[in-house]
Amino acid sequence: MLTEDQLHDLNQPLLAEHHLQFDYLADLLARRGQDAHQLILQLVEFQVAIPSWALGTGGTRFGRFPAGGEPRSLEEKIGDVGLLNQLNGSSNSISLHIPWDIPQDIAGLHQLLKEQGLSIDSMNSNTFQDQKEQAHTYKFGSLSATDRAVREQAIQHNIDCIRYGTDLGAKVHTVWLADGSNFPGQSHLRRAYLRTQESLAAIYEALPSDWTMLIEYKPYEPNFYSMVIPDWGTSYTLCQSLGQQAQVLVDLGHHLPNTNIEQIVGRLRQLGRLGGFHFNGSGYGDDDLTTGSAKPFQLFLIFNELVDANQDTSLTASTVAYMIDASHNTKDPLEDLLQSVDNILGAYAKALLVDRTALQEAQEANDTVRAEEILRDAFLTDVRPLVAEAYRQSGGALHPVRAYRAAGVRQQLIAQRGKFSLSTGL
Amino acid sequence: MLTEDQLHDLNQPLLAEHHLQFDYLADLLARRGQDAHQLILQLVEFQVAIPSWALGTGGTRFGRFPAGGEPRSLEEKIGDVGLLNQLNGSSNSISLHIPWDIPQDIAGLHQLLKEQGLSIDSMNSNTFQDQKEQAHTYKFGSLSATDRAVREQAIQHNIDCIRYGTDLGAKVHTVWLADGSNFPGQSHLRRAYLRTQESLAAIYEALPSDWTMLIEYKPYEPNFYSMVIPDWGTSYTLCQSLGQQAQVLVDLGHHLPNTNIEQIVGRLRQLGRLGGFHFNGSGYGDDDLTTGSAKPFQLFLIFNELVDANQDTSLTASTVAYMIDASHNTKDPLEDLLQSVDNILGAYAKALLVDRTALQEAQEANDTVRAEEILRDAFLTDVRPLVAEAYRQSGGALHPVRAYRAAGVRQQLIAQRGKFSLSTGL
Amino acid sequence: MLTEDQLHDLNQPLLAEHHLQFDYLADLLARRGQDAHQLILQLVEFQVAIPSWALGTGGTRFGRFPAGGEPRSLEEKIGDVGLLNQLNGSSNSISLHIPWDIPQDIAGLHQLLKEQGLSIDSMNSNTFQDQKEQAHTYKFGSLSATDRAVREQAIQHNIDCIRYGTDLGAKVHTVWLADGSNFPGQSHLRRAYLRTQESLAAIYEALPSDWTMLIEYKPYEPNFYSMVIPDWGTSYTLCQSLGQQAQVLVDLGHHLPNTNIEQIVGRLRQLGRLGGFHFNGSGYGDDDLTTGSAKPFQLFLIFNELVDANQDTSLTASTVAYMIDASHNTKDPLEDLLQSVDNILGAYAKALLVDRTALQEAQEANDTVRAEEILRDAFLTDVRPLVAEAYRQSGGALHPVRAYRAAGVRQQLIAQRGKFSLSTGL
Amino acid sequence: MLTEDQLHDLNQPLLAEHHLQFDYLADLLARRGQDAHQLILQLVEFQVAIPSWALGTGGTRFGRFPAGGEPRSLEEKIGDVGLLNQLNGSSNSISLHIPWDIPQDIAGLHQLLKEQGLSIDSMNSNTFQDQKEQAHTYKFGSLSATDRAVREQAIQHNIDCIRYGTDLGAKVHTVWLADGSNFPGQSHLRRAYLRTQESLAAIYEALPSDWTMLIEYKPYEPNFYSMVIPDWGTSYTLCQSLGQQAQVLVDLGHHLPNTNIEQIVGRLRQLGRLGGFHFNGSGYGDDDLTTGSAKPFQLFLIFNELVDANQDTSLTASTVAYMIDASHNTKDPLEDLLQSVDNILGAYAKALLVDRTALQEAQEANDTVRAEEILRDAFLTDVRPLVAEAYRQSGGALHPVRAYRAAGVRQQLIAQRGKFSLSTGL
Repeated sequence: MLTEDQLHDLNQPLLAEHHLQFDYLADLLARRGQDAHQLILQLVEFQVAIPSWALGTGGTRFGRFPAGGEPRSLEEKIGDVGLLNQLNGSSNSISLHIPWDIPQDIAGLHQLLKEQGLSIDSMNSNTFQDQKEQAHTYKFGSLSATDRAVREQAIQHNIDCIRYGTDLGAKVHTVWLADGSNFPGQSHLRRAYLRTQESLAAIYEALPSDWTMLIEYKPYEPNFYSMVIPDWGTSYTLCQSLGQQAQVLVDLGHHLPNTNIEQIVGRLRQLGRLGGFHFNGSGYGDDDLTTGSAKPFQLFLIFNELVDANQDTSLTASTVAYMIDASHNTKDPLEDLLQSVDNILGAYAKALLVDRTALQEAQEANDTVRAEEILRDAFLTDVRPLVAEAYRQSGGALHPVRAYRAAGVRQQLIAQRGKFSLSTGL
Repeated sequence: MLTEDQLHDLNQPLLAEHHLQFDYLADLLARRGQDAHQLILQLVEFQVAIPSWALGTGGTRFGRFPAGGEPRSLEEKIGDVGLLNQLNGSSNSISLHIPWDIPQDIAGLHQLLKEQGLSIDSMNSNTFQDQKEQAHTYKFGSLSATDRAVREQAIQHNIDCIRYGTDLGAKVHTVWLADGSNFPGQSHLRRAYLRTQESLAAIYEALPSDWTMLIEYKPYEPNFYSMVIPDWGTSYTLCQSLGQQAQVLVDLGHHLPNTNIEQIVGRLRQLGRLGGFHFNGSGYGDDDLTTGSAKPFQLFLIFNELVDANQDTSLTASTVAYMIDASHNTKDPLEDLLQSVDNILGAYAKALLVDRTALQEAQEANDTVRAEEILRDAFLTDVRPLVAEAYRQSGGALHPVRAYRAAGVRQQLIAQRGKFSLSTGL
Repeated sequence: MLTEDQLHDLNQPLLAEHHLQFDYLADLLARRGQDAHQLILQLVEFQVAIPSWALGTGGTRFGRFPAGGEPRSLEEKIGDVGLLNQLNGSSNSISLHIPWDIPQDIAGLHQLLKEQGLSIDSMNSNTFQDQKEQAHTYKFGSLSATDRAVREQAIQHNIDCIRYGTDLGAKVHTVWLADGSNFPGQSHLRRAYLRTQESLAAIYEALPSDWTMLIEYKPYEPNFYSMVIPDWGTSYTLCQSLGQQAQVLVDLGHHLPNTNIEQIVGRLRQLGRLGGFHFNGSGYGDDDLTTGSAKPFQLFLIFNELVDANQDTSLTASTVAYMIDASHNTKDPLEDLLQSVDNILGAYAKALLVDRTALQEAQEANDTVRAEEILRDAFLTDVRPLVAEAYRQSGGALHPVRAYRAAGVRQQLIAQRGKFSLSTGL
Repeated sequence: MLTEDQLHDLNQPLLAEHHLQFDYLADLLARRGQDAHQLILQLVEFQVAIPSWALGTGGTRFGRFPAGGEPRSLEEKIGDVGLLNQLNGSSNSISLHIPWDIPQDIAGLHQLLKEQGLSIDSMNSNTFQDQKEQAHTYKFGSLSATDRAVREQAIQHNIDCIRYGTDLGAKVHTVWLADGSNFPGQSHLRRAYLRTQESLAAIYEALPSDWTMLIEYKPYEPNFYSMVIPDWGTSYTLCQSLGQQAQVLVDLGHHLPNTNIEQIVGRLRQLGRLGGFHFNGSGYGDDDLTTGSAKPFQLFLIFNELVDANQDTSLTASTVAYMIDASHNTKDPLEDLLQSVDNILGAYAKALLVDRTALQEAQEANDTVRAEEILRDAFLTDVRPLVAEAYRQSGGALHPVRAYRAAGVRQQLIAQRGKFSLSTGL
């Protein structure tokens, strides 16, 4: 944990330049009729959940290269997220993954969360790996397995997740189903869907009435011929069959090449079924890179859809769970997360800048060039001073990554936890 | 038109070899417990509609190279399809495209169709091009246009198509909507969807109660940022909002790279919303190549899903409209169509060979290798003698392309219609 | 043609705001040790050629919707480019396409070019379409055709292009070869390559010693099974076999999904074989959209490679021909081109901002986060005031698109040339 | 090891049906002027190397599900390959991976190989993972690393591999370089290439004069922004800079979506730089599935290029190293390999059936339909009896997978090695 004094001292040398830039931007926006302080309020309010499994370096099947000082327990993970939230004031909740994060000392965890100003956002089940004590293997699937005993085990695991979450005050359960097949013929495509629907219904039945169940989709990996839930259409039909507490989760890395993701986001929001996001960056597939690192314009266009829908009074209000889901080899995982949140806030800030009245006029008039330029004007504006000011007003660092480095956090973590501590994750 | 004698003479020199091959295959199948004659009955029954616009060479925006002797009128198009159906006995209906095929002499057309043993399968509207006499341009969309007058014109055009179809005895109306946008911002993605939904509802209202309305999807081209109906999920939600006569049409070329199309087919069939097919071959996108030329295994897997669903008594029976939608520069278009039908029948025949009882056993037991080999066994079997026998039993040619060439059909068409006749199409 | 007074008057109302923004940015850069005026000199110097075929609306095979007032002759095309160059001072040359732009009055054209301050940049051959008077068809290829007479015709056409270009002072000949096949078996892949190599050698022999011959590649369209020159590797081996005047041309839309184009650019520059660029925007394939409209970050990364290589004294200096190659339905084509140039200059300006010394330090130290942030810092900076100032210093408009609209150019062109004039192109 | 008697007994019940099918096919081919026995000789001669790392189940980063009885030592791996080769007579060599397969008892290994009738085919280095005793980490690259000490370590490792291979009689060294970057800016793209070139030159210098060095390429994974050797063009230019013993290796799973791989194969063969193959099946990327399971037609087209080039007397003869590189979760790895070899032989057999004289005639005459049908005729022929006969004549099993199962091999291996033995690999 950093102290307030430390944060203050870290910001001090940057303040003069920050004010220069922020004041200029605020004036520029004012000349366009936009109130920088209103925008900052919205940025301050925006929160992204941090996944417990991204606090260590993620790898690939070809290797994993730990950063050192990775958290060894749920308590240490909470500590890391607390630190991130101190630095950026924008990540006040955690996504947990079971069995990696099975809570032991519930009261202690509540106390720790309270001290850090954090809450538990979403529970995530794992039926894609076998655990040591497990009775049945998931080698051939879990919720879609042909073997009833396997399905029952997987259902029970999901219900356990909900129970752990209830203990910790979570309200969201996320199901990512890795089930599928690698070879034509291996699996009966329609029956696998029906079995999955039935299994999900059993989990849904155990869902408290104030919870949301998120159904993720993914076109390939770890299965390379078929995935049982490959696309938003499949998630959507499953949600329809379950009930209104079932919602679709969009993971940015889970799409075929060239998919227009922002359109899916808008569509699901319109249909009342957009429940959550997994943010990450992707060049090729589920690459789990820093959000916004590969396609910053796409990230902006996604936020453009979200902001547009939120301002659309014809739509029912909607709670979308924003979560990061990424971790990779070549960065310090905490810096990676700070960058992701920074890119997300930047995209959100730009989306808030869009002049929607003018845009709608241009769209209605089929003035393609003007409509595009209105969007681009927001995208091209350098909003970093707005985001920095939001951090500052939240009590965080003007430049979280620099502060993190200046404070020597990683070195301290290595000193505390050792050079070869390896956090649970992929 | 070929005479029965001509067809007889064309088959004569091939018959001995055919019988040798067919008898061997029938024996082989018999040893596996399969009855070749039962299979042939199913092949004979199977019919694929021919699109009127594929009777001339299709091209690309870079050029079109006519074949010569292309049909110049709806009557000549019917003649060409009649000829194909004589040769293969498997293409006894026609898809029409309005305004290219506006019928004038209804009674005459009925008479002509009857003579040729043909019927009209599906009507197809065109709101992606401007016609000379048109009041409003489709430059900025049609059913999704921001301008109400444009939408009304497009709705009316679709209703006109249905009316023309009613005159000719058709029962299916296909909507392929080219609407979309080329640039972020150009179109409001959610409002474009809502306007489309409203327009489709107006068309659906005009649909006779014994008709089906098919809603096609396509991820890109002619619009390259967004398409209003890019994926099966969007088609599906539109169908749901319209009613049970609205069904999804799957065009094989309308998918993002690496899409598992057979899974979509199975899914839609399971959901009771698979209404039709556009068959074609595709290496990259909507390439409109000969069906089965690029990915024969995929075509087999699609038929495997169709056959499997048809034999599944838990599903409601379903009428799926099978249509070809392809035409390209480098082949005689009639030979192209004969090849497409041939490949379709081959894939269907192989799918009929699959030992579904054994396959299900292997699937339930998670015996991946065995399940795959059961499928592959059907795929690797050379079923050409079965298809040839089905042609023969329908009164057609054992080898339609060879017969077409031997009979000198193209030369005759050129003699009748000229070297530079250019059929309507793309 | 706009008068200087007109341009002055168009800029007048924007000047105060421009100065405010420019002065702020110049100060900001100065604080980072960068000289805005030096940057502007580089921007002013940068020129992008305009293709004659982009002055009319481009379309797709599904339709083309003309804008009105399109140029009807080479002289009118030169007039349009002159106008663009007046507005942005950054497009002082033209790419011609034969046979669409066969020059008639050479002396008159030289006079006209001189008056407009323009030159001819590159000649482009067309062997993908048949022309009326042509002896042999390109239906089955041109430089790769099996028929020697077809190849000779195509070779001669390319030699003619060079001759026309010589008359007009051009120094670059571009070969985009559409040849390929749609079906496995149609073409012998290795022999098609060898025939192409031989044909190119015959053209190369006719190349004046101060010319460059650019060899473009494209993975698909208009052929959808194989293209004879599908990738940079093939272009490169062909160039090697020809000689040092043969160079590779990179067209941004001619790549498979997810290709890292900037790496190809760097590689070719390193190998001494990067000869030219076709700029355009692409969501899916050869979409021919406004440059930078779909993937602005990619455009920046490409310029980052170019600037980096230009500043690398270990490399031999290189002349890269920068050309736009794009035109689409839904925009006024001249506005489209102004936007493209604007996006190109913006990307170039950002690439010039990259602190290469710091970047190299971070790269050598494997400080991934810092290296990325150095690049992103340049990308996120709003450089529009720099580009506007470059326009102003070139005698152009601070905001070319707005000036174009305010001056009512399109309306005047329609008045002069008619509403339905259709320019040559695709 | 199976005994000859066992193999005889396993074939016995299948022989009658086999003879029926084989005789029919031989007759059919004879009527087409093809000699089945000649074809079988070529099939018998064809050998595919088995990678030591595919003898255990491969997995994904999401999990690995061992099959039981996996080999625990190099000696046991040789035993497994010997068994495969007994069953199919087509896999008489092994690819080794260092450090997983560092040989200890050289004399003993030679003896073992001799007993089994096997040889070592190719050595494969591993610089994508850190080993325990390693001085420097490969976290930021190996042959391309900015740190000279890392590069030297990686070079030395490759030289060690060659030395181990020399001890064992290998003649091929394969370099797959996982180096690259995950984020724009992380790596200087051109300098990474130059460092790699320099490192490869140092390895090449250590290459015995009768060895070949294969340079593999891969577009992404484990790095998701850039790979240093992403495409065949890069491999090719590196080979050119090294010398004639350097050759390109094509891995079927290492291509961007929709790549025409067979064309690359033909191109490299024409350029004299096709050195080897890694066979596997791929739906999306480097999926490492059974060869031919996903795209059997593509596999046939690849063999069509190979056979065509081998029969082309204008080309210098070439030794291509054929290796499998695949292993996945859901199959018994030995069954997986038997299937892969079976599919490879099937594709090869079909390619041998192509009537090349007729094909060339059709190609020269631009008879697209006929050319395609000639290829398809070979593809559609059921060649399984030919492959089975080749197995039989090599002393193997008519149906290797069935024999493997009938002999209870996996159960014996589990009994010997235990249920939880986990072989080295990914």
